[in-house]
Amino acid sequence: MFTVSPSLLSGDLLNLGAQLDALRGLENLHLDIDDGNFVRGISFGMDIVRAVAGRTDIPLDAHLEVLNPCDYVEALCACGVKRICAHVEALPYPSLFLSAARKNGARYCGLALNLKTPAEVLLPYVDQLDYVIFVSVEADYDGLPFRSGVLAKVRAAKAFLRPETEIWIDGGVNESNLQEIVTAGVDGLVIGRSIFQAPNPVAAYHRIRRLVQEYADKEV
Amino acid sequence: MFTVSPSLLSGDLLNLGAQLDALRGLENLHLDIDDGNFVRGISFGMDIVRAVAGRTDIPLDAHLEVLNPCDYVEALCACGVKRICAHVEALPYPSLFLSAARKNGARYCGLALNLKTPAEVLLPYVDQLDYVIFVSVEADYDGLPFRSGVLAKVRAAKAFLRPETEIWIDGGVNESNLQEIVTAGVDGLVIGRSIFQAPNPVAAYHRIRRLVQEYADKEV
Amino acid sequence: MFTVSPSLLSGDLLNLGAQLDALRGLENLHLDIDDGNFVRGISFGMDIVRAVAGRTDIPLDAHLEVLNPCDYVEALCACGVKRICAHVEALPYPSLFLSAARKNGARYCGLALNLKTPAEVLLPYVDQLDYVIFVSVEADYDGLPFRSGVLAKVRAAKAFLRPETEIWIDGGVNESNLQEIVTAGVDGLVIGRSIFQAPNPVAAYHRIRRLVQEYADKEV
Amino acid sequence: MFTVSPSLLSGDLLNLGAQLDALRGLENLHLDIDDGNFVRGISFGMDIVRAVAGRTDIPLDAHLEVLNPCDYVEALCACGVKRICAHVEALPYPSLFLSAARKNGARYCGLALNLKTPAEVLLPYVDQLDYVIFVSVEADYDGLPFRSGVLAKVRAAKAFLRPETEIWIDGGVNESNLQEIVTAGVDGLVIGRSIFQAPNPVAAYHRIRRLVQEYADKEV
Amino acid sequence: MFTVSPSLLSGDLLNLGAQLDALRGLENLHLDIDDGNFVRGISFGMDIVRAVAGRTDIPLDAHLEVLNPCDYVEALCACGVKRICAHVEALPYPSLFLSAARKNGARYCGLALNLKTPAEVLLPYVDQLDYVIFVSVEADYDGLPFRSGVLAKVRAAKAFLRPETEIWIDGGVNESNLQEIVTAGVDGLVIGRSIFQAPNPVAAYHRIRRLVQEYADKEV
Amino acid sequence: MFTVSPSLLSGDLLNLGAQLDALRGLENLHLDIDDGNFVRGISFGMDIVRAVAGRTDIPLDAHLEVLNPCDYVEALCACGVKRICAHVEALPYPSLFLSAARKNGARYCGLALNLKTPAEVLLPYVDQLDYVIFVSVEADYDGLPFRSGVLAKVRAAKAFLRPETEIWIDGGVNESNLQEIVTAGVDGLVIGRSIFQAPNPVAAYHRIRRLVQEYADKEV
Repeated sequence: MFTVSPSLLSGDLLNLGAQLDALRGLENLHLDIDDGNFVRGISFGMDIVRAVAGRTDIPLDAHLEVLNPCDYVEALCACGVKRICAHVEALPYPSLFLSAARKNGARYCGLALNLKTPAEVLLPYVDQLDYVIFVSVEADYDGLPFRSGVLAKVRAAKAFLRPETEIWIDGGVNESNLQEIVTAGVDGLVIGRSIFQAPNPVAAYHRIRRLVQEYADKEV
Repeated sequence: MFTVSPSLLSGDLLNLGAQLDALRGLENLHLDIDDGNFVRGISFGMDIVRAVAGRTDIPLDAHLEVLNPCDYVEALCACGVKRICAHVEALPYPSLFLSAARKNGARYCGLALNLKTPAEVLLPYVDQLDYVIFVSVEADYDGLPFRSGVLAKVRAAKAFLRPETEIWIDGGVNESNLQEIVTAGVDGLVIGRSIFQAPNPVAAYHRIRRLVQEYADKEV
Repeated sequence: MFTVSPSLLSGDLLNLGAQLDALRGLENLHLDIDDGNFVRGISFGMDIVRAVAGRTDIPLDAHLEVLNPCDYVEALCACGVKRICAHVEALPYPSLFLSAARKNGARYCGLALNLKTPAEVLLPYVDQLDYVIFVSVEADYDGLPFRSGVLAKVRAAKAFLRPETEIWIDGGVNESNLQEIVTAGVDGLVIGRSIFQAPNPVAAYHRIRRLVQEYADKEV
Repeated sequence: MFTVSPSLLSGDLLNLGAQLDALRGLENLHLDIDDGNFVRGISFGMDIVRAVAGRTDIPLDAHLEVLNPCDYVEALCACGVKRICAHVEALPYPSLFLSAARKNGARYCGLALNLKTPAEVLLPYVDQLDYVIFVSVEADYDGLPFRSGVLAKVRAAKAFLRPETEIWIDGGVNESNLQEIVTAGVDGLVIGRSIFQAPNPVAAYHRIRRLVQEYADKEV
Repeated sequence: MFTVSPSLLSGDLLNLGAQLDALRGLENLHLDIDDGNFVRGISFGMDIVRAVAGRTDIPLDAHLEVLNPCDYVEALCACGVKRICAHVEALPYPSLFLSAARKNGARYCGLALNLKTPAEVLLPYVDQLDYVIFVSVEADYDGLPFRSGVLAKVRAAKAFLRPETEIWIDGGVNESNLQEIVTAGVDGLVIGRSIFQAPNPVAAYHRIRRLVQEYADKEV
Repeated sequence: MFTVSPSLLSGDLLNLGAQLDALRGLENLHLDIDDGNFVRGISFGMDIVRAVAGRTDIPLDAHLEVLNPCDYVEALCACGVKRICAHVEALPYPSLFLSAARKNGARYCGLALNLKTPAEVLLPYVDQLDYVIFVSVEADYDGLPFRSGVLAKVRAAKAFLRPETEIWIDGGVNESNLQEIVTAGVDGLVIGRSIFQAPNPVAAYHRIRRLVQEYADKEV
């Protein structure tokens, strides 16, 4: 039930095809589509996404960190991405994005929130949300640490989101803060460096999943 | 006391003069001034507003859905519009708008909130607000349904707004959701299609008013 | 061959239906779609354009004075507008607009230039342009006079535009400057106040056309 | 412990050097760096700040009311300003600013909030904040009165900020509202007109400090 | 006839009053109003301009390097500034600015051009221009040298501007390039560092004027 | 002397490492850094550029099609890119970019122009330009054809650029228009699809080079 979604942007960018093959069997793969204006740093765009989607069977989730998310919905759905979220900060009218994603065939439609944005903005959209991504890190000069203040937002959101709406955390997650995060009641994690900087990313992925399970079991 | 304000934008745009005459006696008429940038879709601007104001005695309320609301205050007041609100999302400094509207002669000065905006932004302005419009619909691919999440915002706002500040709802209101809305304690409604797509708009208007009264009486 | 296109925005806005009927037989009617941000003052948007297009057989030309002209192309073509132009200042990539208009069925695709913009920006698009509108007036405190400097731009453009590309002038045209304009070699005029502030707009329209013919004959 | 920081912008702008000399011994001096776009009205920029910092030993605090606060951090720190805050509304990623200020040598790093912005946006940054400025006035036509709604935000913030994080108020403070403000539990004040429009600014400064002490003592 | 206008921003910012007194008798003084967004670096705004205008009889010229020049016209004219120019790059409709300046009492109304902007944009405004400022320097890492390419623009402009329209150069002017500039036919200079970094600014000013005269005489 | 620079964006994005190895020996490789806002479509950013630069010895040229080109200069130079250009439309002050590129170690510093932008904007920068890229295609619905109007701009630029400033063409180049382009006097070409959609890209590259030589010889 719990999802761990490794971010391909931390993978081997010179050998994406081989990287995808090595990850075969994963339950999810995270695609950061960053425009360098909404967020610092361009990642990659639809040319690479289309190539990736054509090469792998791993379910893909796209995280639009761009100024105009609605421009990407049709193309993402056309290449089979079933899980799509965009930042609420870039959407004056989030329903427009959510309904466009649904209409174009996305199975999971969501909104992402920067660290700064209060969870309360999600309230009028509770019945349209399949999942939410709380970004837990900000580009800074401190080495991109996980900002644990995000967990207060997770708790606030759980009080009003529907039970079936998944809550994901994205940024700075590693073994040292994993228990704290799982205990807060999240349903999914995006992980980059902790997986792809390990000698064996697939093993690191399974180890993270095992730890998540362990911490979740403790909760019950 | 309760106000129902039909939105002229849903009226007969090719015969506005005759439309206004037919509506004579209404207690209020709503003018959407939309610039197509703050909100999708241009409605009409000051040329039409001036013509409308010169033709009818119905009290007019203007709802500025534009990027720069302060640019319209003087002209609106000059043609006798007494009730004016602008979107808080377009106003880094809402007091500037509210004090300009008051200075230019508006009798009711208000702020409007998009679905996404938490009611809490109104808190520092409670003593400057005559009314508030909560937009309850978003341009989307779902057919513009009333988003009932807005009622949570109405309840939150009632906890801190002054009793004399009116709370209005705008968007997607019809007979099927009217009771739910009235019960939440609102003081006014903007209605478009439910009135002007009826065979007899004036009759539809009075029917809505009667239903409002009925639901309100039940409350007491 | 020469086109005179009265701007409906100067017409009787409270009785557009009757206004359109009275103008029956005109060769063209100009629709200003102004968003109040690209240009000062909102005119009207697609709701009114659709109503107008459904009521009249007069060929319509749409002049998009908006921040995002591409957003309007499909809707304009869908209601039968065959002549569409947008401002080059709002288009980082004018071919995108021109090819979209063509693809959606527009018969005449053009670009408009504000007074400030040199004619040279049109040079890379000469083979895509059916017509060009040179705006000859600017919102100001001088009473919106015709700015004759625009004629230097007309002459510069004639040197490189294809002969079949029509050149139109829009703004401040009246009988006192008509000869000067016709002599500069333009192919069309947008006229507002000079026609609709006349006691008989249709007569004023025909008088302007007669004068144009007279001045053009002198030229030959 | 309580800080009163007179805003130099209200001082004698034609004789800043002499003004600074006259203020010698103050515990703090406030520099408004306003760009006229984020906020109405340009104040002054780094040329004047550098000159001021070179002339006085009074500890300086800089309040960046600008669209791009990060552009100023390095230069401010280079001339010895130890206390810097920027507006959260201008910072999509506040950690970037806070960590840049720290890295460049600022001793106190903070965020400022316009009247409109809920205190909750500060929540994810509690462990990075040395101080917070709540702006308590807005440019308007009412004569810039202190907006007491800001005190609700102060109380909300005190519930989650660390005890060592200072809370400052900026705007419209004078003797008539001083007690109300001190009682709300703030740690600092920016004062402009109340000090510099007094016949003797230094005396006015000390009088304000004495009153603050008196009101604070009452609290305990 | 030739104007040399020292830029106060290069003067003694801590002692503006004394600086102004020392410059008494100058024919002109240049006020850079820079917002740090249109151009890098905030200079100062209306608070300082008002103080300056109240202290000196030197005729002032204001150079608006700001995103929204029209916002400053009324205030500048109200404090007696008789010569005002704004950047054409910030003005989609330059006539609006020029007519506003005239209406508010400015005696000389002009437009300024950044290095990058071709002189041709001025063509439609020739009969509204009293003067033009060609900025001849750009913020860069080369030490802000005078960019002599600006003189090609001066020559292009002289071909179509009216003889009574003054052409000014602003930026990087010093004794080593003065002859080249005067010979190109300009009518005015803004000078900053060359005057205020001299031991005796007034003497430096008169020396520059003498050199200008000398170079101009050679021309005839 | 003539440069043909294949655009890696048209290469095998899933196997960039192998692609780079296969291209070993090329004289140049073109990196499009597109942010999806300045231009439609995100390409890739610094993560991929850094990986590419670490893998190959082919000299790289970066073409910044982004809103804020100056943000990329330091990082590009740090990974050894020696040829950098940015769009003049994104640079209010092009000298800032050019001098930053030079200061950070770029060997060739240039500006790129969209189809719409007249060549004249380059005039004030002639002594700072090592090369210029004229984009010859626009995102549109016509299949991205080469727009031959760009050659008029090439000819205009050759009249005032220094002989050592290289002129490049980027977009829609193929064997059918190659002669026309070479004959216009350009010094370099960016080619994407014509090379990478060929069965053997390296062979296609050498064939293009041979044709260029042939056409150039005819000229002499």
